[in-house]
Amino acid sequence: MPHETIKRLALYLRSLRYLAEKRVEIISSEKLTEHIHASPAQVRKDLACFGEFGVPGVGYQVKKLIAEIESILGLKEKREVALVGIGKLGSALLAYTGFRKFGFRISALFDNNPEKIGKKISGLKIEDVVRIEEVLKRRKIKIAITTVPATNAQEVANRLVAAGIKVILNFAPHYLNIPQGIIINTIDMAIELECLAYFLTHKI
Amino acid sequence: MPHETIKRLALYLRSLRYLAEKRVEIISSEKLTEHIHASPAQVRKDLACFGEFGVPGVGYQVKKLIAEIESILGLKEKREVALVGIGKLGSALLAYTGFRKFGFRISALFDNNPEKIGKKISGLKIEDVVRIEEVLKRRKIKIAITTVPATNAQEVANRLVAAGIKVILNFAPHYLNIPQGIIINTIDMAIELECLAYFLTHKI
Repeated sequence: MPHETIKRLALYLRSLRYLAEKRVEIISSEKLTEHIHASPAQVRKDLACFGEFGVPGVGYQVKKLIAEIESILGLKEKREVALVGIGKLGSALLAYTGFRKFGFRISALFDNNPEKIGKKISGLKIEDVVRIEEVLKRRKIKIAITTVPATNAQEVANRLVAAGIKVILNFAPHYLNIPQGIIINTIDMAIELECLAYFLTHKI
Repeated sequence: MPHETIKRLALYLRSLRYLAEKRVEIISSEKLTEHIHASPAQVRKDLACFGEFGVPGVGYQVKKLIAEIESILGLKEKREVALVGIGKLGSALLAYTGFRKFGFRISALFDNNPEKIGKKISGLKIEDVVRIEEVLKRRKIKIAITTVPATNAQEVANRLVAAGIKVILNFAPHYLNIPQGIIINTIDMAIELECLAYFLTHKI
């Protein structure tokens, strides 16, 4: 499935859960698209790939559609996540409830600061980064989030690769050189803001 | 300039500054592409748009190229940013030094929690969200970052629009309905992770 389709399915799911909390039972594709940037035709096409969930002329049953998308995205399995870098951003990510809604559970913490190693946060002990390989191999953790400074980012990435990590969400503002077959996405918040603000300087 | 070009320019800049810190004076387009996901031809094409910065067969002068890209992206002007939602993520963003490297300065803070309003953090007073319109209009701030919960996100977006904000970087995990002409990007960290982890469930 293309990356963009997965993203839209995740966005539908987020909206549908929001609607379910508000006790909405049925939703039309038109109404659903008001919650994401996509056309009703796109919504119908995306959902058509996975069988017939809708009632023509009425809409989709919210709860049923939630269960179907959860199953498609594989959210029924719990997925353990390692977090490397327990600074301000790391602590914010640890406290972020959004990950749990997608079945992710941050369950291993690493830092290289001797003052932090051995301390507990949210019931989890912060381990030394030198133990990444040992701990993640033993616990078969395949997903990692890194928030380490740029200067340490490549070294941490190398450790994660050696530990068998397959998926990295990287917040370090630095390009990481990783082997093929490992999936990485770097979120550089300053660059995201720059991409928006450029238009402010040049258009307004 | 297309969004993707701006993003690559910002990535070049990030790498060039890193190289400058390491006292690298000249870099080839081949070497520069090792720092981002782009071909040497793409690098040469991007930089060719802005005149001749390179010495053929040798490379680009790092410092000169930094100055040129900073000028193209408009980084020489300081850009004030409002931050709405001073929770864990908001505090982490406030402490994040990456924004300053791109000329952004978070200089107005807002929250709706009476226990936070009036308190100071990083030398800035946290204002009540009901004052967004008054404060931002007076100070002519056009860029905002929001980290408020999904349930408050639309209300805050409406206030920001009324205050004359033109650019919003939104971390609230919710779709925001905003008028045309206002530029918004929503970073939903759980959905970013889901997009990567999907491949783990289905490929490995």
